[in-house]
Amino acid sequence: MPASTTLLMTLDCPDRVGLLARITGFIAAQRGNFIEVNQYTDTISNWFLARFAFEIPPNATLDSVRRDFTHVAEELGARWELRDRAKPLRTVLLVSRQDHCLADLLWRWRSHELNIEIPLVISNHEDLRASVEKEGLPFLHLPIEGAAGKKDACFRHLADVLCKARAELIVLCRYMQIFPEWLCAQYPNAVINIHHSLLPSFAGADPYRRAYDRGVKLIGATCHYATEKLDAGPIIHQEVIHAEHFHTPDDLRRLGRDCEKLALARGVRFHVEYRIVVHGSRAIVFGD
Amino acid sequence: MPASTTLLMTLDCPDRVGLLARITGFIAAQRGNFIEVNQYTDTISNWFLARFAFEIPPNATLDSVRRDFTHVAEELGARWELRDRAKPLRTVLLVSRQDHCLADLLWRWRSHELNIEIPLVISNHEDLRASVEKEGLPFLHLPIEGAAGKKDACFRHLADVLCKARAELIVLCRYMQIFPEWLCAQYPNAVINIHHSLLPSFAGADPYRRAYDRGVKLIGATCHYATEKLDAGPIIHQEVIHAEHFHTPDDLRRLGRDCEKLALARGVRFHVEYRIVVHGSRAIVFGD
Amino acid sequence: MPASTTLLMTLDCPDRVGLLARITGFIAAQRGNFIEVNQYTDTISNWFLARFAFEIPPNATLDSVRRDFTHVAEELGARWELRDRAKPLRTVLLVSRQDHCLADLLWRWRSHELNIEIPLVISNHEDLRASVEKEGLPFLHLPIEGAAGKKDACFRHLADVLCKARAELIVLCRYMQIFPEWLCAQYPNAVINIHHSLLPSFAGADPYRRAYDRGVKLIGATCHYATEKLDAGPIIHQEVIHAEHFHTPDDLRRLGRDCEKLALARGVRFHVEYRIVVHGSRAIVFGD
Amino acid sequence: MPASTTLLMTLDCPDRVGLLARITGFIAAQRGNFIEVNQYTDTISNWFLARFAFEIPPNATLDSVRRDFTHVAEELGARWELRDRAKPLRTVLLVSRQDHCLADLLWRWRSHELNIEIPLVISNHEDLRASVEKEGLPFLHLPIEGAAGKKDACFRHLADVLCKARAELIVLCRYMQIFPEWLCAQYPNAVINIHHSLLPSFAGADPYRRAYDRGVKLIGATCHYATEKLDAGPIIHQEVIHAEHFHTPDDLRRLGRDCEKLALARGVRFHVEYRIVVHGSRAIVFGD
Repeated sequence: MPASTTLLMTLDCPDRVGLLARITGFIAAQRGNFIEVNQYTDTISNWFLARFAFEIPPNATLDSVRRDFTHVAEELGARWELRDRAKPLRTVLLVSRQDHCLADLLWRWRSHELNIEIPLVISNHEDLRASVEKEGLPFLHLPIEGAAGKKDACFRHLADVLCKARAELIVLCRYMQIFPEWLCAQYPNAVINIHHSLLPSFAGADPYRRAYDRGVKLIGATCHYATEKLDAGPIIHQEVIHAEHFHTPDDLRRLGRDCEKLALARGVRFHVEYRIVVHGSRAIVFGD
Repeated sequence: MPASTTLLMTLDCPDRVGLLARITGFIAAQRGNFIEVNQYTDTISNWFLARFAFEIPPNATLDSVRRDFTHVAEELGARWELRDRAKPLRTVLLVSRQDHCLADLLWRWRSHELNIEIPLVISNHEDLRASVEKEGLPFLHLPIEGAAGKKDACFRHLADVLCKARAELIVLCRYMQIFPEWLCAQYPNAVINIHHSLLPSFAGADPYRRAYDRGVKLIGATCHYATEKLDAGPIIHQEVIHAEHFHTPDDLRRLGRDCEKLALARGVRFHVEYRIVVHGSRAIVFGD
Repeated sequence: MPASTTLLMTLDCPDRVGLLARITGFIAAQRGNFIEVNQYTDTISNWFLARFAFEIPPNATLDSVRRDFTHVAEELGARWELRDRAKPLRTVLLVSRQDHCLADLLWRWRSHELNIEIPLVISNHEDLRASVEKEGLPFLHLPIEGAAGKKDACFRHLADVLCKARAELIVLCRYMQIFPEWLCAQYPNAVINIHHSLLPSFAGADPYRRAYDRGVKLIGATCHYATEKLDAGPIIHQEVIHAEHFHTPDDLRRLGRDCEKLALARGVRFHVEYRIVVHGSRAIVFGD
Repeated sequence: MPASTTLLMTLDCPDRVGLLARITGFIAAQRGNFIEVNQYTDTISNWFLARFAFEIPPNATLDSVRRDFTHVAEELGARWELRDRAKPLRTVLLVSRQDHCLADLLWRWRSHELNIEIPLVISNHEDLRASVEKEGLPFLHLPIEGAAGKKDACFRHLADVLCKARAELIVLCRYMQIFPEWLCAQYPNAVINIHHSLLPSFAGADPYRRAYDRGVKLIGATCHYATEKLDAGPIIHQEVIHAEHFHTPDDLRRLGRDCEKLALARGVRFHVEYRIVVHGSRAIVFGD
């Protein structure tokens, strides 16, 4: 007997009475059985947001549920996503020269901690080719260089590559290049970035040196969706660590790497588990 | 126009297809509108657990929903609870001589942080009478003394007092007396205790001295439901704090008090917000 | 036989070889016995900073040590402070209308957790008079009102009151008034403020609402010395707490209060234990 | 001009007046300049413990300081250690089949986060040979099998290997084999183990399953020195992470791995920086 299939669905729409009954009634009619449901209404904007995890019977499929639910979603005016929890999410990693986040994600991928497949790792430098290829993964060196016009051409090339790789998720593992607006717009809430500070503190360059000069007692990192507004996309997760007075700026960078690794890994996990629904400038994370 | 009424419901029962649709369909039929829903299936024991927060229309009441839902609950074989979120929970505080948890809870009550009313504070000592009475609250000195038989008579007296006070929740704020089994059984999952260690570490007496001798680096406290098995009831919440080598056992007690205050206050809040459903030895806390 | 006296000394000066030997040699010559010593050299600015806790023999006194050490300190070009650990620090509390930090500090004072004496509590409002007076403490209503010139007169009055109260430490327990530069300058590193955000994030007004809108996942508070630069004094301690998506701005304020209470209490303790030496914009906290 | 040499010294001995002056006077006489000093007296057992970091002038060497200090240490009856901070500590890693701690430590070693050299990685299984060898490190498969007598022979072989490798530190990266007493005794406070729970909770096997059944809200890990008493050696560091109700035992294992990696890496760092002095059952960690 085959193991049951578990589907994950996220959904948001204007709030009104009966939404949850409509959706759960539909799933029940398909003989789907819920194993975890989270619903939240933003009562300020009157918005309904939810996540559903449910098992479907052998005669149902992802495609049959998707086809039938389309009508329900239209009726509700809902934005929604649906996937098979067991199916790895196609994830392209972008990296520059620093490898701590990359190494951490690759370890979690290799150890099946993160349910992703990695068709490609892309970098604007050659430095990390060996460490990627020894994992058996393709590595593409795609420089981002030159003046603004030249740079944009590079990003158009990058967009082509991402499209051909059929990327469902893009993770900027300390990529150090700012995605252009039009590229962020192609992957709404599907480009995850790690910012090396506790946003909105120290947005911008060299936050660890500035944190040292300011004498802060907590070092942090922020995992967020990249949007056209730099360092201002919806925050997915933040990690923090206590700093001591004898820590040098380099020590703070080291502590920061631990925050960054953990914040990014958890943020990617929340995305892969479909725990996130973005509403305006806020990322609602169910069960973080 | 009156503000809307928000009801809180917790429920658990054996799992099967259609439960959530049945319940949410019922609420929708009453024109109830969900603002926060959490459902979780324990797939090991095949058990359905959920919490619902929903607004009801002006023509509905807590009583009308309760009456009508009784039939649904019977049909599902469910254990359930329902209350008006705005109605303070009648909470009796029991205390011995140490007042840190009591003072913290009284501050939160006075500041409307915790939605409780306190008909009575009971102590087996006189020490804290003044600090309770200056809050305008009745204080009852009810000694628990003597040999086993004598003590049991004291607890029977206590049980009478609790009954007359119509206690919905009993909070042991460092009460230092072990509730007898039969008394715990009268208030299932309604007696909250604070244990001054990170259970199951250092269960029993003087955990801070033992933590010092063991050189632990983390001091913690556990908020749990009192059951007939001492220090083994379902864990609601735990707090932890880092200890330094120069901390004496007295310093650890001080740090411990901060953990205890916070863990108890949060545990009581989760209970008051009906965020907890107990399943076997585990307390499921939705949104902790 | 009398219990031994423990002295606390902090000291900083330009670094050079032999400083620690000179100081500890002096203390040893007085038959002082160290129980905790922390020394740190800021190798960027070449600055020596240290804290010493030591017991002195029955024939020595705070005054004799102070008198004799004066020569050593002059020789080293050191800034230093010395006090008897057992002697409570005279601490004036300033408060506005919110009482969470005040209530927390008063509880810790009453319970002998903090070794302070409180000659006076000052407020620019009458609201908290009763809760202060029932602790047996004098309460002074000193309004800060009017245009700039008028306000400055109020602060000159306040300065007189602080002077007469022989305040050694001033704690702004959510005072909501900005101390003028000249007043900060009278009490260098002796005015402790609690800022209701994780500085430098959300400096300024209503940080919790802004944190909500930004969807941050961590709520924090910062305890710092007040200086002439608003919200930019040396940071003493920071606390942080995880926020959930269902938390309203009011919930964040509540979580913030828990951070504020804890951050302020710990910061005051570090100050009272003479664990802090300020160097430029950084507060070095030994053993935080 | 050569960079200055920094030495690290730890020391403990019976307490008496003048110890710190004697030691710092000796260092000053050698023209050594302190950059970080921590001293602590355990006033319960009357024991002096300290750590010194100091730069020595070009004409001094580790050996000259060691030779001259020997007389001082004898005079004080002190146990002490001294090393050049820049010199990597020879560290042998022992591992079984799980590689999360190993991979984490190897990354930190490769990235120069940890100042160690690794002459050898030893395992009782073949599984991790490839991942070790691709780092360019020697891997030794040394099975630990059979009945007690046979096993002991295996450990004697292991002891020979460790001796030949001139191991200064041995790290058990989830080694799953219990070091015999006589082997622990050969490396006092130089065998670091990671225990997959927050000791003393859940000492022994499968703590994550037991933590799940007990419904604990915090998952933790403990880094400690291995001693002849299993799971009872001095605790160096502990990490903790919040668990959610929907986490399965496997999820708890995953969260536990993050705790284990971080706790072990930090514990090893504290050891390598000579921040730890063990006194009885307690590990004093200066600046953790």
